[in-house]
Amino acid sequence: MRVLGIDPGLRNMGWGLIDVAGSRITHVANGIAHSTGADLAMRLLSLHDQLSAMIALHAPTAAAVEQTFVNKDGVGTLKLGQARGIALLVTAQAGLTIGEYAPNAVKKAVVGVGHADKVQIAHMVKLQLPGVALAGPDAADALAIAICHAHHLQSANRLTQALAKASA
Amino acid sequence: MRVLGIDPGLRNMGWGLIDVAGSRITHVANGIAHSTGADLAMRLLSLHDQLSAMIALHAPTAAAVEQTFVNKDGVGTLKLGQARGIALLVTAQAGLTIGEYAPNAVKKAVVGVGHADKVQIAHMVKLQLPGVALAGPDAADALAIAICHAHHLQSANRLTQALAKASA
Repeated sequence: MRVLGIDPGLRNMGWGLIDVAGSRITHVANGIAHSTGADLAMRLLSLHDQLSAMIALHAPTAAAVEQTFVNKDGVGTLKLGQARGIALLVTAQAGLTIGEYAPNAVKKAVVGVGHADKVQIAHMVKLQLPGVALAGPDAADALAIAICHAHHLQSANRLTQALAKASA
Repeated sequence: MRVLGIDPGLRNMGWGLIDVAGSRITHVANGIAHSTGADLAMRLLSLHDQLSAMIALHAPTAAAVEQTFVNKDGVGTLKLGQARGIALLVTAQAGLTIGEYAPNAVKKAVVGVGHADKVQIAHMVKLQLPGVALAGPDAADALAIAICHAHHLQSANRLTQALAKASA
């Protein structure tokens, strides 16, 4: 299984891909889509096209997107929502099922605690994906989301196997 | 010129098209895209595909989208942002230039005051587009946005002509 993680953002959209085989995960690629364009619509289009090209190139089979933290900054929430809509659209256009995880769940899956900072996340991502070259903090977060989704899928798989064994 | 107006919403996305010839505007079509799907990503995809099909059918040459009112409801703002991102993406994919207008500016252009309610907007849209059958309040709002954009383009055009005359 190849899992794509996306960390949504209007200016910088982080993405990361890992391969999952049993309990083993390996790094495939990571990067950051930077939005360019004269206005908001063109910036959203550039994000859409960069993410679509990345998916066409790497052919993930599952995807996960971080749940957005809603705060009192309405303008910031709106911007992030618009970018997040593009991330969800692109994965749906590729026919991928999409997991959504709260930031704390992602941190807990990767670092072990729910209140880790970006430095800790990047450190643990590097430990779990030896030799990875990170394109930046947003790409590290995206890989963390992919790792979180992989753990979730592995747990679900183990549960299915245990249930099958119990009923055999 | 054929102007598309869009009233963004995750559940119901209103759209309306008018033709503009000099100072004359006529109704072309209006409707509401309802999002369907098992999850948010599928709902955004269904909105994307409905709007894309509508644009392919009616071939607008300009577009306008309502600026979103940001309030303290962060969850609502995020939902609306995700839907609005799709509306902007679809118009950019069609190569349209996109005007953005605050709700008060739209109301002022169509009703004459900035604090009109939905009933007044629908009433004035019907007066300005005789014989129009409205698909619903969101479609009336979308036509109002298109009318607002038409007024804006007409004013800009008159200004250009006046300047050309003055310098002749």
